[in-house]
Amino acid sequence: MKLKNFITFEGGECSGKTTVINEIVKMLEKMNYKFITTREPGGIRIAEDIRNIILDVKNTEMTPECEALLYAAARMQHLKEKVIPKVNEGYLVLCDRFLDSSIAYQGVARGLGVDNVLKINSFALDYLPDLTIFIDVKPEVALKRLTLRDKSDRLDLETIDFHNNVYNGYQEVLKLYPDRIKVINGNQPLEDVVNDCKKAILEYIGE
Amino acid sequence: MKLKNFITFEGGECSGKTTVINEIVKMLEKMNYKFITTREPGGIRIAEDIRNIILDVKNTEMTPECEALLYAAARMQHLKEKVIPKVNEGYLVLCDRFLDSSIAYQGVARGLGVDNVLKINSFALDYLPDLTIFIDVKPEVALKRLTLRDKSDRLDLETIDFHNNVYNGYQEVLKLYPDRIKVINGNQPLEDVVNDCKKAILEYIGE
Repeated sequence: MKLKNFITFEGGECSGKTTVINEIVKMLEKMNYKFITTREPGGIRIAEDIRNIILDVKNTEMTPECEALLYAAARMQHLKEKVIPKVNEGYLVLCDRFLDSSIAYQGVARGLGVDNVLKINSFALDYLPDLTIFIDVKPEVALKRLTLRDKSDRLDLETIDFHNNVYNGYQEVLKLYPDRIKVINGNQPLEDVVNDCKKAILEYIGE
Repeated sequence: MKLKNFITFEGGECSGKTTVINEIVKMLEKMNYKFITTREPGGIRIAEDIRNIILDVKNTEMTPECEALLYAAARMQHLKEKVIPKVNEGYLVLCDRFLDSSIAYQGVARGLGVDNVLKINSFALDYLPDLTIFIDVKPEVALKRLTLRDKSDRLDLETIDFHNNVYNGYQEVLKLYPDRIKVINGNQPLEDVVNDCKKAILEYIGE
């Protein structure tokens, strides 16, 4: 089932997702559009607490199963406490990452299997986004950008193999949900990526 | 699948579980038996961090889905990081609570459904305990004992209805796994409960 007015943004590391969302926020603010932005894992106190456990650099011994279940836990709390109520109040909800990240990262890159990830996320399947903006960036482009970043968390310490696997994971996601996902060419200059994403949002809201 | 030398203890609040485990520890120490005790949710750093989120009194807005997924996450980390390695090293592993608690508490008492709880715990189904000691206490007996406790966490603040539902939940668990679970009459004086549990352990280890 899909949740109307719930839009998610997906992509590997350094896909330009954060810049894109910031620019869409500016655009919707100028339009006085009724919207909120949020993110996964996080967006509310309980989910941010869970996020801190997942991203803690000292937790290198975390198993893929535990990681996937923590993402699923944060997801459900965030959906029920924030996304669904806001949609019901008439807001457009823009969310940085959702289920597709779990399929790509834990299901494929960590090797848990897509079916296992869908199983532990069975509660969330009742609230799929109505539109997903996927910024498709080749792993070599993403890694080049990654080296320019100054901060790092546990996920940034992964190898090039992991980034390749995430890329392959998203290709699996595209096969699963071809209708829900709008693919944006993320290898273009960032300005063009932003413009393509803005266009997709405007089309969705019918402007 | 069952994991040999993995024994779990189950029961509602104030079933005498803690006293029972302490007395079994004393007995096994006297015998110089190779064993460890651990608990769920917790037993290792990541799982204790998850436990803190679950039991935090300020987290009253936590949804049953999130709670169940957090228990499942802590369970998998604990299994892979502690239970399985210790069993492989030749230890008898005694664990305070496991999957059956999730079935009784989240599946039945919180109303998520037994099937849903089994689905999100699918990873753990490969490592079921070889023996489960279930201390069966009538809810009215448990509640009378509960009022004598001085500390309280979020779960202690639940109503009598919740305790009744947990009781019913464990009856469902017994129907699911009649062979694995040894039922101990927990309404007896605590000394007798302890003795019955000791007897079950001695029988399992063949002493």
